[in-house]
Amino acid sequence: MGDAGVVSATDLTATDRSTLRRKKERGSHERAQVEAILDEGLVAHVALTDGRGPVVLPMVYARLGDRLYLHGALANHLLRTATGGAPVCVEVTLIDGLVLARSAFHHSVNYRSVVLFGDAQLVDDLDEKRVAMVALVDHLVAGRSGGTRLPTDAELRTTAVVRVPIGEGSAKVRTGGPIDDDEDLGLDVWAGVIPVATTFGRPEPDEGRPVELGVPDHVAVRVTPA
Amino acid sequence: MGDAGVVSATDLTATDRSTLRRKKERGSHERAQVEAILDEGLVAHVALTDGRGPVVLPMVYARLGDRLYLHGALANHLLRTATGGAPVCVEVTLIDGLVLARSAFHHSVNYRSVVLFGDAQLVDDLDEKRVAMVALVDHLVAGRSGGTRLPTDAELRTTAVVRVPIGEGSAKVRTGGPIDDDEDLGLDVWAGVIPVATTFGRPEPDEGRPVELGVPDHVAVRVTPA
Repeated sequence: MGDAGVVSATDLTATDRSTLRRKKERGSHERAQVEAILDEGLVAHVALTDGRGPVVLPMVYARLGDRLYLHGALANHLLRTATGGAPVCVEVTLIDGLVLARSAFHHSVNYRSVVLFGDAQLVDDLDEKRVAMVALVDHLVAGRSGGTRLPTDAELRTTAVVRVPIGEGSAKVRTGGPIDDDEDLGLDVWAGVIPVATTFGRPEPDEGRPVELGVPDHVAVRVTPA
Repeated sequence: MGDAGVVSATDLTATDRSTLRRKKERGSHERAQVEAILDEGLVAHVALTDGRGPVVLPMVYARLGDRLYLHGALANHLLRTATGGAPVCVEVTLIDGLVLARSAFHHSVNYRSVVLFGDAQLVDDLDEKRVAMVALVDHLVAGRSGGTRLPTDAELRTTAVVRVPIGEGSAKVRTGGPIDDDEDLGLDVWAGVIPVATTFGRPEPDEGRPVELGVPDHVAVRVTPA
């Protein structure tokens, strides 16, 4: 397992490809900001290059310290295309607002995003896989794994889990209102921001099953307050 | 402009890389389903391969008939790496629910996603760029462009817009509750779905500007009802 679970104190590496170029958004290599965005997101968009070109697929994920664990169809894809490590790019984006300017040109989106570069490694060790699977469940709903039947060795053997180091990459954040040209500020056009949020609704129990249970606390607290 | 704006009647092409392999989710090459998912999403995750490996970045986008128009940092990236067309993969994912099973192993996410493969082309023609910019604004908020100052030729010249054909690719959808093993159904574990939605909040006007305006209808209808 190495240092999984230990939070790295160092910020992310700014290489040529992860150095930020654009001005209007705020970029950062601060690990705390990268981790906060990764911990809030639900799905990562993972790109790799196969024999014919780029492929990007959604995957569920979890962060454990300075490692990202990925689970989903792309893990099988990686199994087919990679022996050992495969270079991947992982992106997580949270949408915070629609930015409506007076000019069409200056419309934008408020967001927080992370882009990571690294070598994806298939996890072979059953203990590391088990810890990763628990983290994947708890990433969806904090504390969820404690109430569930944990994975058996047989289940873990049939599951592909991929590990990517959180080392090279950056966060980007856009906040605030539209930035119109001065000569447009007097136009008769409403401008501002429509806030966007991801909300979690009332839990829907799995019907028609033998056991009837109340909604546990760890599920109830995931619901967005009205 | 060619046939932009004309809806293609044909479904998407199922090539080797876009043929669906997994069973639990429902896959589709139906154009109507692909278009519905693209029209509801806000940000596309666009992958390309540069000299060192895969890169995926978030981009705003709009669909016009059987073409996708992309706008954002990656357009500049494409400008640097591609002369003429560059193979890209475009993915849009909508999250609909957290699927909580009795076993950790069977936890999942309900989602609707589209993955497209195609050659990205930088749009040079100013008229096509103008139509694309209007579509990009109206994709954020339907009818928005009508109330804004439209792009000038000078603005269009400084904007990179990329066109990708909607031809090769597929949609994938997971719906419904957890699929637990029969022997787990009697466990004393709450199971079900926490619905997830993207919600649009009360519009926040751009403060401290000369013109005070009420919220127009096209903005008001974007807000999610309470």
